[in-house]
Amino acid sequence: MAEGQAGKAFYFEDYYEGMVTDSISYDVTKEEIIEYAKKWDPQPFHIDEELANASHFGGLTACSAHTFAIFCAISQKWKSGVVQQVLASLGFDELRMLRPVYAGDTLVSRSTVEVARLSRSQPRRGVVRSHCEMLNQNNEVVFQLYAAFLMQCREQLV
Amino acid sequence: MAEGQAGKAFYFEDYYEGMVTDSISYDVTKEEIIEYAKKWDPQPFHIDEELANASHFGGLTACSAHTFAIFCAISQKWKSGVVQQVLASLGFDELRMLRPVYAGDTLVSRSTVEVARLSRSQPRRGVVRSHCEMLNQNNEVVFQLYAAFLMQCREQLV
Repeated sequence: MAEGQAGKAFYFEDYYEGMVTDSISYDVTKEEIIEYAKKWDPQPFHIDEELANASHFGGLTACSAHTFAIFCAISQKWKSGVVQQVLASLGFDELRMLRPVYAGDTLVSRSTVEVARLSRSQPRRGVVRSHCEMLNQNNEVVFQLYAAFLMQCREQLV
Repeated sequence: MAEGQAGKAFYFEDYYEGMVTDSISYDVTKEEIIEYAKKWDPQPFHIDEELANASHFGGLTACSAHTFAIFCAISQKWKSGVVQQVLASLGFDELRMLRPVYAGDTLVSRSTVEVARLSRSQPRRGVVRSHCEMLNQNNEVVFQLYAAFLMQCREQLV
């Protein structure tokens, strides 16, 4: 999708199966990994840098909740600048941490629409299901899931 | 499981299929919902109390990432006080927000072990897969997922 559509509302009718979108990028810092994990997942290897360096990971890694939070934050911020008209999350499947996310990594979320259909139960609503991945600066997939959202339709088309 | 085993290490061999455990409880505050969502999911209905009150939710609700973070935080803190010897997450399936999580709710995580088996690829490791739910103060299930973890075995038993 072309960049430079900042602020444009993106409705259900704008999605199509096979559509691929990239998010803005996100720099993961050591400070944020430690701060997040102290509150939400205080395992020693997420908050103690020396211990993490000596572990088989060889460095501090973001906890699962932090990685998912980064996904939630950037996957709604597309490079194109459009604003997705999301009404509700319908759930997430096959959430996998495929590689460690290290301090210093830069992540991008890439989504591929697999299903885009009208809601069977709710008028003027669409269901969009996408396969989403986060890639690091080496183009390695570090995270994946399938996400389904309820989307708003353009009023006049319904 | 009996309470009062605070600090006891809980290894793969201690899990069994059908085992049910409850976590400590967690109070969800308005301030935390807003603070979390501002950083990770700044949708208006997660951060603007007036708008949230006027929405069909009728109040501020925690975003998905916040709800998952609460699950990660409390699901490792069992009422019994044991310390699970988790080595790594193997992934999460069928993550669903079944009801809104409101400011003022008190959540508990309940896990039921569905599979407990030795790892096929890694010696001295076990795989434990559980169905996990979070319940609110009205005993309503607000969140569910299936979680699989790689667990440490007791050295002497392997």
